[in-house]
Amino acid sequence: MSQPAETQGYGFNHTMIRVKDPKPSLEFYQNVLGMSLIREKKYETFTLYFLGYDRGGDSLKESHIMEREAILELTHNHGTETDENFQGYASGNTEPGRGFGHIAITVPNIQEACERFERLNVPFKKRLTDGKMKEIAFILDPDGYWVEIIQKGLRL
Amino acid sequence: MSQPAETQGYGFNHTMIRVKDPKPSLEFYQNVLGMSLIREKKYETFTLYFLGYDRGGDSLKESHIMEREAILELTHNHGTETDENFQGYASGNTEPGRGFGHIAITVPNIQEACERFERLNVPFKKRLTDGKMKEIAFILDPDGYWVEIIQKGLRL
Repeated sequence: MSQPAETQGYGFNHTMIRVKDPKPSLEFYQNVLGMSLIREKKYETFTLYFLGYDRGGDSLKESHIMEREAILELTHNHGTETDENFQGYASGNTEPGRGFGHIAITVPNIQEACERFERLNVPFKKRLTDGKMKEIAFILDPDGYWVEIIQKGLRL
Repeated sequence: MSQPAETQGYGFNHTMIRVKDPKPSLEFYQNVLGMSLIREKKYETFTLYFLGYDRGGDSLKESHIMEREAILELTHNHGTETDENFQGYASGNTEPGRGFGHIAITVPNIQEACERFERLNVPFKKRLTDGKMKEIAFILDPDGYWVEIIQKGLRL
C-alpha cells in the first residue's frame, strides 16, 4: 500500500515514557545505552528530557529535535522521586496496565553488549540464553520498563 | 556528556505496543498516519507487524528493519479481536497502568493534518485549540493509545 499523499513528510518523532527519578534514568539512557541528552525543558510541575543517538550533522542540536526521528522523551513529574507513597509506574507488560511493551535498541555486537550490561549490574528480564529466542535480550530500565536488545541486522 | 565508546553504533530501533485487532490498527497507522507495513511475522499465538516511514533507499526493505530507527512494532495476540471478555489495553495515561505516555508524529502542516483527521473521523484527545499548548494535538489510535501530532520543526 502506498503512503497517502497527504501524509508526505510525516515522521515518527518520539516515544514518551514517565520516569520516577530523572537521575538514574538519565544515567541509564546516557551511560548504559549511549544516548545523548539533546534538550531539557522544565515546566512548573514537570520536566521533559529528550534523548537520541548521534546521527551526525545537526542530529543533536536542540533546534533539530522536531526534524528527526527516534527520540526518547522522559517525563518527570516533580516530586515522585521523593514521594514515599508513589507506587511506581507500570511497565505495560503485566496486569493491570498491560498495553505498551518495550523500546528496542539495536547493537553491533549483542554478546559484547550483554557482557557489558552484566558488568554494569543492569538487571535483565531475559538473558540471551533464556527462553526460545536466543538472539535477543531484555534489560530493565530504572523504572522497570523493558528494553529489548537486538543484534543489528538481525533478520526476523 | 559524550557517548561511551562501547555504545558506538547503537540505535533506537523500535517501540512496541499491543493491539487488540490488527485490522483497524493497520488501517490507522497506514492510511491515517501514512506509515508503511515493512514486515508481518506470524508466530503460533501472536503476530508482529513492523511499520515505519519511507526514508528512501532500503528503508522499507524487510532486511533493513534492524538496520534503521523509528520502527513501530504492533503485537497482536491472536483471539483478542473476537474475545468478548477482553478488557482492552491500557493507554498508559490513567491509573491503573500509568507509565507509557504516547508516540509522536511530526507533520509538515499541523493545521492541514488536524483538518484531515477530523474529516477521517479520528478521535481527538486534545485538539489544537484545547488546553495551553496550542501547537500540539493528540489523537487516539484504535486501542486508545495517545498519538501526539507536532508541527515539524517546532521549537520547544
